[in-house]
Amino acid sequence: MNRTYAIDIPKHENQEVTLMGWVDVRRDHGKLLFVDVRDRTGVAQVVFTAKEKELYDQANELRSEWVISVTGIVQKRPDNMKNPNIVTGEVELKALRIDILAKAKELPFEKDTEINLDTYLDNLPLTLRTPRSQALFKVQAEITRLYRDFLTQEGFVEFQAPKLIGEDAEGGANSFSVEYFGHMAHLAQSPQLYKQIMVGVFERVFAVGNVYRAEKHSTTRHINEYTSLDIEMGFIHDHRDVMKLETQLLAHILDCLQISSKKQVALIGATIPRVPQHIPEVKLRDAQAIIKKLHGVDCVNEPDLEPQHERWLCEYAAQEYGSDFIFITHFPVSKRPFYTYEDENDPGYTKGFDLLFRGVEITTGAQRIHGYDTLVASLEKKGLDPEKFRFYLQAFKYGMPPHGGFGMGLERLTAKLLGIENIKEATLFPRDINRIDNLLST
Amino acid sequence: MNRTYAIDIPKHENQEVTLMGWVDVRRDHGKLLFVDVRDRTGVAQVVFTAKEKELYDQANELRSEWVISVTGIVQKRPDNMKNPNIVTGEVELKALRIDILAKAKELPFEKDTEINLDTYLDNLPLTLRTPRSQALFKVQAEITRLYRDFLTQEGFVEFQAPKLIGEDAEGGANSFSVEYFGHMAHLAQSPQLYKQIMVGVFERVFAVGNVYRAEKHSTTRHINEYTSLDIEMGFIHDHRDVMKLETQLLAHILDCLQISSKKQVALIGATIPRVPQHIPEVKLRDAQAIIKKLHGVDCVNEPDLEPQHERWLCEYAAQEYGSDFIFITHFPVSKRPFYTYEDENDPGYTKGFDLLFRGVEITTGAQRIHGYDTLVASLEKKGLDPEKFRFYLQAFKYGMPPHGGFGMGLERLTAKLLGIENIKEATLFPRDINRIDNLLST
Repeated sequence: MNRTYAIDIPKHENQEVTLMGWVDVRRDHGKLLFVDVRDRTGVAQVVFTAKEKELYDQANELRSEWVISVTGIVQKRPDNMKNPNIVTGEVELKALRIDILAKAKELPFEKDTEINLDTYLDNLPLTLRTPRSQALFKVQAEITRLYRDFLTQEGFVEFQAPKLIGEDAEGGANSFSVEYFGHMAHLAQSPQLYKQIMVGVFERVFAVGNVYRAEKHSTTRHINEYTSLDIEMGFIHDHRDVMKLETQLLAHILDCLQISSKKQVALIGATIPRVPQHIPEVKLRDAQAIIKKLHGVDCVNEPDLEPQHERWLCEYAAQEYGSDFIFITHFPVSKRPFYTYEDENDPGYTKGFDLLFRGVEITTGAQRIHGYDTLVASLEKKGLDPEKFRFYLQAFKYGMPPHGGFGMGLERLTAKLLGIENIKEATLFPRDINRIDNLLST
Repeated sequence: MNRTYAIDIPKHENQEVTLMGWVDVRRDHGKLLFVDVRDRTGVAQVVFTAKEKELYDQANELRSEWVISVTGIVQKRPDNMKNPNIVTGEVELKALRIDILAKAKELPFEKDTEINLDTYLDNLPLTLRTPRSQALFKVQAEITRLYRDFLTQEGFVEFQAPKLIGEDAEGGANSFSVEYFGHMAHLAQSPQLYKQIMVGVFERVFAVGNVYRAEKHSTTRHINEYTSLDIEMGFIHDHRDVMKLETQLLAHILDCLQISSKKQVALIGATIPRVPQHIPEVKLRDAQAIIKKLHGVDCVNEPDLEPQHERWLCEYAAQEYGSDFIFITHFPVSKRPFYTYEDENDPGYTKGFDLLFRGVEITTGAQRIHGYDTLVASLEKKGLDPEKFRFYLQAFKYGMPPHGGFGMGLERLTAKLLGIENIKEATLFPRDINRIDNLLST
């Protein structure tokens, strides 16, 4: 018999259907036994009566997470049993037959128990099955889909960036080493150099993929393997073209999520903000002056922002502009990677930006250097050997337009959007210094 | 002034527009100088006359791959100068002003020179700019898009599979090792275990991402880092449900490509086949009997197919069924991974399949074992330690439906679809035993 999904059960009143899924909850009411069956569309209630002993006894064996196929007749629930909170709350399935597709062992804890993060992570194959986790990672998939859709519409071409790289382009300290046929390779920290090369091919490109940071700190906002949403675009006037595109992209994603992920967002209890038409932008040093004025903390000559500064600036943007977002521009040349464009009108400072969202940086972007000679000089100034970059440098040797782009961590964006405290909860299988699925032995 | 793309030039006859792009070709006709400017939409011709000396002299400096912005008036070409082969062939831009955005060094070879594969790979930032490479990787992006679209329509949820894994689930010999904070980690050979875990969460999932094989052979169909298109689906009857879905998926991709990538496919000179409603399927041993009968080669008791066997079977499918595709099923249990389902009606053989396309295997798939105890027994039978798989095994401990799926190499599919001889040409930045961008020093 064909499978009917939980969500479609109400359409089949008085008909025989087969439901397949997991036993979500079993409730024993003496002569009646209720089993909630969960499938990818929702939950439907199945009822067994003591009168039909064989079936009832079979149902009595069922435990949470057993996988079953149950055939029955769809009937209206008695009025006092209706549940207006779920789509299938008006009906139930009166069981005629059960087939057990797989049994489950006893669960390590009740499904609605509050558990700590380590227990959650230790048991991901089970804990990811909660409505909250399901909702979260559906929203994450939807963010990725909307990101690609918008960019494809805007003429960007997706490409597959390699993750296994020969030389570590952005400084070796934070890269993982891979033994590669007797050579030493590395895991890419970003698709940066490849996306720039691809600007020479398609002008506008994007990539979605894992990147790696061998950072030893364990915080609520860092993981060692994350998904980077990257774009790079040619023929820009300056970094503000990139910021404009990012603003439009985020507006598209967030506006669409309000509709397509309404149910999931509500379940998590999150609020998706609107993206203002113009996200406020402040130069780093002006941002530092604001911090000094509002909070009395002098960080004016520091080359970067501390986490507390980022939180303050987001508070400022919310109060002053009603915006959950703020761009900080013009970080010093010394603090940005070699490929960052120096502002000719503000020497020593870059046409680079960070985008802060709800207290944390979610994007780093910039106009890039496109002149071959300037780029070689910049490498040398940073103490890097141009010879090691000769493959990449070809793109510039053979003509590159003014261009820029940004990278955005998918997991961090998901976390901030949904009000998730720890990025590890917004990462399906997070890797950190202590854990790859299981805790690493010490 | 706003940028006008090459493709839109014909819409602006007698108007002033600004074109930006690369100098594709410069042709010197004495008193007239023609420059073809290439942007992401195509090529448009710009004309300079000797009468306007300053501009003419400037244009005379231009070389291939210089990046320019040129403003001019769109005018009809003289009849004898029209080029019906390109969209912009009726018009040209009479230059009023050029700005040089970036110069290029002299190219290492003429752009239309025949070069060998190594030279092509050494110079990718340049050689990827050819119309053929552009077309190829646009088709690849389109395949990926169509793959995701179809699956999303069918209720599959995309997930980000980790690539950095703790224990090597499919046998250690072919995996790359990563130094991970004093521990040894590996690069994933497939997202297999994670996609099975995710069936427990969403029933139907897919993933797109890099996978790694530390295989030492250098052939025209292997690379060490490739993009795997993976799916896994729950509540199947058997492996044939997976084969059916794959057939529909391929039909969707190939049918849509015929339209959306018509221009690119024509440029490459490829023919996209139709996918038959039912792809022929043969058990391995029957396929071997066919080979013996048609070619006199006895491979009947071999556990797998040789490349030549795959070619013969594709010839057979084409002749017998008019199909470019053929499924081979029921490989022996001994030859398939531990998670493969043994056919209860054909003991010793699996509900696993390969899909052959134009002479080569493009997919491996199967129904998987979903029972916890069966799976543990299968691990032990293969000499693997269940304790090392304890994270993964939780999915089965806590109830898994019958399920199956497949993985497909994006680059190999692209190559076979477009008639590309060597998979390295269908991979943007191929990694092999001798090369990561540059040749590895020996």
